[in-house]
Amino acid sequence: MAINFQLCWEPEDQTNILGIDIGGTKTALVMGTLEAKILRRTEFLTPIADPFDIAISKIENAVDNFIFDWHKDGNNKPRAISVAIGGPLDIEKGILFSPPHLANWGTAPVKPNLQEYFKLPVFVEHDGNAGALAEYYFGAGQGSRNLIFITMGTGLGAGIILNGVIYHGSSDAAGEVGHIRMADQGPLEYGKVGSWEAFCSGSGIVKFAKLRSPDLWGPQTTTHEIVQRALAGDPTAIELIDEVGRWLGKGLALLVDILNPDMIIIGTLGVLLGDLVLEPARRILKQEALAITNNVCKILPAKLGSSLMDVGCLMAVYDAYKNKRLWLPQDQ
Amino acid sequence: MAINFQLCWEPEDQTNILGIDIGGTKTALVMGTLEAKILRRTEFLTPIADPFDIAISKIENAVDNFIFDWHKDGNNKPRAISVAIGGPLDIEKGILFSPPHLANWGTAPVKPNLQEYFKLPVFVEHDGNAGALAEYYFGAGQGSRNLIFITMGTGLGAGIILNGVIYHGSSDAAGEVGHIRMADQGPLEYGKVGSWEAFCSGSGIVKFAKLRSPDLWGPQTTTHEIVQRALAGDPTAIELIDEVGRWLGKGLALLVDILNPDMIIIGTLGVLLGDLVLEPARRILKQEALAITNNVCKILPAKLGSSLMDVGCLMAVYDAYKNKRLWLPQDQ
Repeated sequence: MAINFQLCWEPEDQTNILGIDIGGTKTALVMGTLEAKILRRTEFLTPIADPFDIAISKIENAVDNFIFDWHKDGNNKPRAISVAIGGPLDIEKGILFSPPHLANWGTAPVKPNLQEYFKLPVFVEHDGNAGALAEYYFGAGQGSRNLIFITMGTGLGAGIILNGVIYHGSSDAAGEVGHIRMADQGPLEYGKVGSWEAFCSGSGIVKFAKLRSPDLWGPQTTTHEIVQRALAGDPTAIELIDEVGRWLGKGLALLVDILNPDMIIIGTLGVLLGDLVLEPARRILKQEALAITNNVCKILPAKLGSSLMDVGCLMAVYDAYKNKRLWLPQDQ
Repeated sequence: MAINFQLCWEPEDQTNILGIDIGGTKTALVMGTLEAKILRRTEFLTPIADPFDIAISKIENAVDNFIFDWHKDGNNKPRAISVAIGGPLDIEKGILFSPPHLANWGTAPVKPNLQEYFKLPVFVEHDGNAGALAEYYFGAGQGSRNLIFITMGTGLGAGIILNGVIYHGSSDAAGEVGHIRMADQGPLEYGKVGSWEAFCSGSGIVKFAKLRSPDLWGPQTTTHEIVQRALAGDPTAIELIDEVGRWLGKGLALLVDILNPDMIIIGTLGVLLGDLVLEPARRILKQEALAITNNVCKILPAKLGSSLMDVGCLMAVYDAYKNKRLWLPQDQ
């Protein structure tokens, strides 16, 4: 039987897309529409201890069950699969190369494997880029043209959208902002003393706190505790977060003078901490960046909040569809 | 009489374009073909002491004479005017806003004025971008897709070409790399202690030398002298240039991890000093940038050398023509 392809068979809101968000801890499965409306969701622990062949079989098995239940309830099967995953990876081919957060996976041909198994079009996007696209299309970034999304979760990465198009770079590694050096001394993160990630990520902040004031932050301190104390009004935690915000601002000033974006959107910790971390960043930006670049750039927390990566993992397909790079099969 | 427009009337090599490179010291006039072949050139001092109205009249007068002589020799009159100039400016409108290097000009509507006077299409480009486009189309950047051009002349600016398209930014100010802070202490340049321009530009290097080793570099030292001594093999000058190269590498590492370009081309001082300044930069890059980004990025001196801005000032029209944004009038 011949398979015919066209851009969209059913109406957009009845065309379903399966999203897979593969993280270093959990994997989420999302059933969404071609308009990125989330209809159903589940999650499970990513099989990180397994080699890739076994890990992907387990993920495929979970997807099978997820689709089976979905279809049993009288819903349309998905027409395409959209994946968000951390790099390094070849985005077009959908192959990961020895990802540090999935150390046992080695070279992992995620897209070829899923495509072969499900006989559906599969699109893959770097998770920082997926977050950027989610905010650009559905979050705080609507109306922006040159947008930088900073993850500020456990790690610190960026997704860069320029002239309305996601920018991947020459080896699909653009936006590795967590690796840039901000100071010759400081905490160690991303293999580098004083990297931006060492000052401004979930894993960095707690190291920074202990290094800066070992008398105030004991060995058991966690980033979660620091955040909770800051939100509860603890002056010690607020002062620490203020300094984190100033380091955030120093890094943002580089991006603002280099790329002249109209918006920078800050993910997880920017959402949790809000102005506690964003105001000092804006203050430093005003000192550090040129008026001509800084005056046109808004610094905002991500708007999608906890659903960011649910929408995000659908973005590989959504962006391909919007830019007419996606043709869906009629028969499955 | 109606004026008809089309993409190109005569063959490309017989369609002439007038280029104007307006610098803070000199203005060059270039007659070139639509293929950016240089046919004739002249230069004069930029009327920087005059207010804009008078300055632009003097430039227009010089252009008139230049075209008159050209036409008198039996050549086709130019079909369009292409301008390269330093910012800040609105590239599309061709208006400068209080350019620091042309302090008496205030708000300077360069494009509207030239268009009105010559009744020809006028295209304007920022000089850093013009240099980037010249190298991209005709110099070391041929075959590149994501290219950063670093001027490294008197100042330090960048032109950024991503996915084969010049990137202007949200207020036409992308590439202000000279303004980013590299250190908390150091020479003062671009209004900022420790800016990248303070370590790695013609005006910065001499300040850096005197600040670093006042015993070795007297108050009369010039950048020209430092460069000449380094080229002649003087160990003191070579060691200084090596350190400049290391600062260059530290800044390039930021660009490489943020933008993942396949090529970075270094202008004036990179051409003059060659590996004396580029090798230490490459050495630091290898330490500072990620392997996945650094391994795909070549660091090269500009290839067009002294004709860089002659070709560069034709790029506003050339790039518009290549991207089908230019329609030339049939009758003049």
